[in-house]
Amino acid sequence: MAAMTQRTIIGLLNPGEMGAAVGQCLTDRGLEVLWASDGRGAETAHRAKAAGLTDAGTARDLAAQASVILSICPPHAAADVAWAVHGFTGVYVDANAIAPGTARQIAELIAAGGGRYVDGGIIGSPPTAPGNSRLYLSGADAAAVRAVHQLFAGSALDARIVAGAPTAASAVKMAYAAWTKGSSALLLGARALARAQGIEDTLLAEWAQSQPRLADQVERSARAAATKGWRWVGEMEEIAHTMADAGLPDGFHQAAAEIYRRSPRSAGPTADDAVTTAVLAALADQDTGQTD
Amino acid sequence: MAAMTQRTIIGLLNPGEMGAAVGQCLTDRGLEVLWASDGRGAETAHRAKAAGLTDAGTARDLAAQASVILSICPPHAAADVAWAVHGFTGVYVDANAIAPGTARQIAELIAAGGGRYVDGGIIGSPPTAPGNSRLYLSGADAAAVRAVHQLFAGSALDARIVAGAPTAASAVKMAYAAWTKGSSALLLGARALARAQGIEDTLLAEWAQSQPRLADQVERSARAAATKGWRWVGEMEEIAHTMADAGLPDGFHQAAAEIYRRSPRSAGPTADDAVTTAVLAALADQDTGQTD
Repeated sequence: MAAMTQRTIIGLLNPGEMGAAVGQCLTDRGLEVLWASDGRGAETAHRAKAAGLTDAGTARDLAAQASVILSICPPHAAADVAWAVHGFTGVYVDANAIAPGTARQIAELIAAGGGRYVDGGIIGSPPTAPGNSRLYLSGADAAAVRAVHQLFAGSALDARIVAGAPTAASAVKMAYAAWTKGSSALLLGARALARAQGIEDTLLAEWAQSQPRLADQVERSARAAATKGWRWVGEMEEIAHTMADAGLPDGFHQAAAEIYRRSPRSAGPTADDAVTTAVLAALADQDTGQTD
Repeated sequence: MAAMTQRTIIGLLNPGEMGAAVGQCLTDRGLEVLWASDGRGAETAHRAKAAGLTDAGTARDLAAQASVILSICPPHAAADVAWAVHGFTGVYVDANAIAPGTARQIAELIAAGGGRYVDGGIIGSPPTAPGNSRLYLSGADAAAVRAVHQLFAGSALDARIVAGAPTAASAVKMAYAAWTKGSSALLLGARALARAQGIEDTLLAEWAQSQPRLADQVERSARAAATKGWRWVGEMEEIAHTMADAGLPDGFHQAAAEIYRRSPRSAGPTADDAVTTAVLAALADQDTGQTD
């Protein structure tokens, strides 16, 4: 391990909330982790610095030095990140919430440039403490997978290899988020319906009696929609594509994408009930345009 | 009350699992409850007899004697039941899981025939013990609602009047079932996706760690889909219409309708895991026809 840690330089694109925490797991182990400040904002720079990452300038400069690249970004940006390092010949891990079909396209792009594609999917919160997140990994390039797997040995991110198709890790992420984020959107939709129909108080009273967990759950869903919904739109669309490719109905996640698309973007220390009200109002605001 | 119970003859269409239990609540109170055996099977007759209902022969004969009719049937049959008693001039309570828009159509039909429409929606299990189900009631005909409300006083079915639109009771039912039955279908869809992608074991292991309630929940959802899914197809379509009418995305419940449409129909004492396997296989069976 000591020999490997001295040789391995890792490029991380990009240090968002999840990416920075993953980078921290690696710098905590003494590994050198690069990021690329080109085109990124002050908030990202702050997170990168706090996680001990080194600025390589551009994605191309990062790719020239790194032997492993981790792509951790919103799903709609996954292909752009792969294009930005086109020609990279090391191990490229796409750890994004993308459909297996999208992962196959990115794998082809990386392979065409001489790189080795490893599929990944992160489940859980940003890895700040052991046990709260897993990095699933899959791919025909078993040796490369094993090296990436070892990068995280003993860190807060539990790296696990999934057998099966080369894009099995993306499939795990899709099936998992199909429920977690899909059901949150559905719950917001159900309460928005009650509000639109003027019977929200009756629904809440009925929930209090027969579904006592839902009141809290809808507030957590509303806060998540308001803070992270903007980057879940693409994820829901990726899940919808995955469902359709498997011959299953894609409507759940097309609808969930629409719920997150309509959610207002805010991330303040506002009270839960105020956030819920704002999200429900935003979902309902669309009524005017769509009904007669 | 004594005077009313002697005058009031109730017609119940039709004594399915829910209808028979509601009828029992009324016969337990000493009320005369009619049903119509015309065109119904032996199982329905058995349930009607057990609940103490009196056979009136046809729906038309039932309507000629009853002063209150309760329509309790699968949503796709709600309009047919209303047509079968066309010309009825008493209080007609539609307690079915239908969209407010559908309820308005049935209300017009009943009013055109000289009857008084009361909207209803039942939430919970068949009322065999106090506290396990509510009958929501709404409508402009407040006196009629009050009379129906009193029919259930002291019974296991908790009748509650909902203020607001004449079809507020149907709206409550739609918003409530939007979550309960919609989320069950979504959960089955998520696991079917994992199965189709060959990573079901990995998903189940991840669920065991981070979503420990889901394993049991998916088995309950599968059993419900196999025993009651056939009559939930129409209910999911009614919810989808309600969502669309409110300017909200209808995809969740169009997809849920498809999940229940594909579910196999069986109601045996089979083990939970066998039922789950059968339902997931049926959902996946459709793959062949829909993928390339």
